[in-house]
Amino acid sequence: MPRFFVDPKEIHPSFMVLTGENAAHARVLRLKDGDEVTVCDGEGTDYLCTVSDVQKDQISLVVHSSDPSHAEASVKVRIYMALAKGDKFEHVIQKATELGAYEIICFPSARCVSRPDDKSLGKKLDRWQKIAASAAEQSRRGLIPQVRSVSSYAAALRDAATADLAVCFYENEDKLTFRAAIEEKPFQSVSILTGPEGGFELSEIREAQEAGLKICTLGSRILRCETAPLCALSAVMYAVGEF
Amino acid sequence: MPRFFVDPKEIHPSFMVLTGENAAHARVLRLKDGDEVTVCDGEGTDYLCTVSDVQKDQISLVVHSSDPSHAEASVKVRIYMALAKGDKFEHVIQKATELGAYEIICFPSARCVSRPDDKSLGKKLDRWQKIAASAAEQSRRGLIPQVRSVSSYAAALRDAATADLAVCFYENEDKLTFRAAIEEKPFQSVSILTGPEGGFELSEIREAQEAGLKICTLGSRILRCETAPLCALSAVMYAVGEF
Repeated sequence: MPRFFVDPKEIHPSFMVLTGENAAHARVLRLKDGDEVTVCDGEGTDYLCTVSDVQKDQISLVVHSSDPSHAEASVKVRIYMALAKGDKFEHVIQKATELGAYEIICFPSARCVSRPDDKSLGKKLDRWQKIAASAAEQSRRGLIPQVRSVSSYAAALRDAATADLAVCFYENEDKLTFRAAIEEKPFQSVSILTGPEGGFELSEIREAQEAGLKICTLGSRILRCETAPLCALSAVMYAVGEF
Repeated sequence: MPRFFVDPKEIHPSFMVLTGENAAHARVLRLKDGDEVTVCDGEGTDYLCTVSDVQKDQISLVVHSSDPSHAEASVKVRIYMALAKGDKFEHVIQKATELGAYEIICFPSARCVSRPDDKSLGKKLDRWQKIAASAAEQSRRGLIPQVRSVSSYAAALRDAATADLAVCFYENEDKLTFRAAIEEKPFQSVSILTGPEGGFELSEIREAQEAGLKICTLGSRILRCETAPLCALSAVMYAVGEF
């Protein structure tokens, strides 16, 4: 069944109208009266609808029922990734959305080479949010992860530490496995914090520890900065029984 | 400590010589007499060496000891990925190598759009093997995963079925989780088989089942063809206690 993401402000309990890009997409799919479609508010609710009228620039829908999306994970996983060079964050946004992340947050750290100014960061955030929306649609999620940035490493730690389980991955840690941290006690929310290309500095690891994050290893192989968060996210989803 | 991959044929028990690209790399690192380096044979053995002589095009080393690499996983995971468009297989080779895959194999399936002929496949295999070597070096592995292709879907199934645990992922499967398959009994080797952009046909799933593969879900979100094998590989490594 075709799926459309509609702004929550445009959601009505009994009828809806697809416009703009959604209407264009509906035309490509050659939707006609009586066809069934799913409308997602991008906040976790799916609406089962039937097409009632097709015009050039708008498709009218009758809403039959609404349900919490079945494609959302049982835990909220937030990905905190240090600013990286090139399109690595874009890559992580796309993949982490597919894999079920709840939010994706970037932050500066000592060894970050990429340091966008506020203006360019604002533009990037718009583009990043679109990447998340597109990946959410493709992977049939009911929620579009929010992509945001925090302005300092300390702020990222404070933000991350609010989760039931908050983990910072460090390539020089060889004792505490992610599994040991996960199996310690049940959790509803997880923060996964990973470093830039050059890794974290030891002082940053101490700061993370003081902020309440567990310092864990992702194994004996050195992962690239864009691989580590996706590996950890896959492991969390596996551990909580998502697949 | 700097690491160099050397062809197993060039490995000697008491001395070695770095030439070609390795010598160029050593020059960049400004190695000098007395410096310690690790030489890997790419087959799982690391050699601890000291530089004994530096010339323009060759660096002589004295071998002190040899050890099995500490960066190799306790299970052998083979990734079987249906031929995909663009650079998706390259992406999977790089990431799967970081994540510890033992071999990475491509195969044709019914809905594959990409169908390289033998000549172009030969060239691609050379390039793919280099991507694996480079990722193995960067992630500090002791083994370079072999990248190979099999000529038919049936051959891929026969090959995959030889593992202790052989799994085919299917987006329409909603009962058997990967976790249930993993926890059924201990294993030393795993085969992970995933489909092309358009997924597997139902007849192919039946064929996989007849060949002895378990048909599993990777969860309720639809993963891209390049995301699925890496998600499954991360989960296996987590499940067997690698991190």
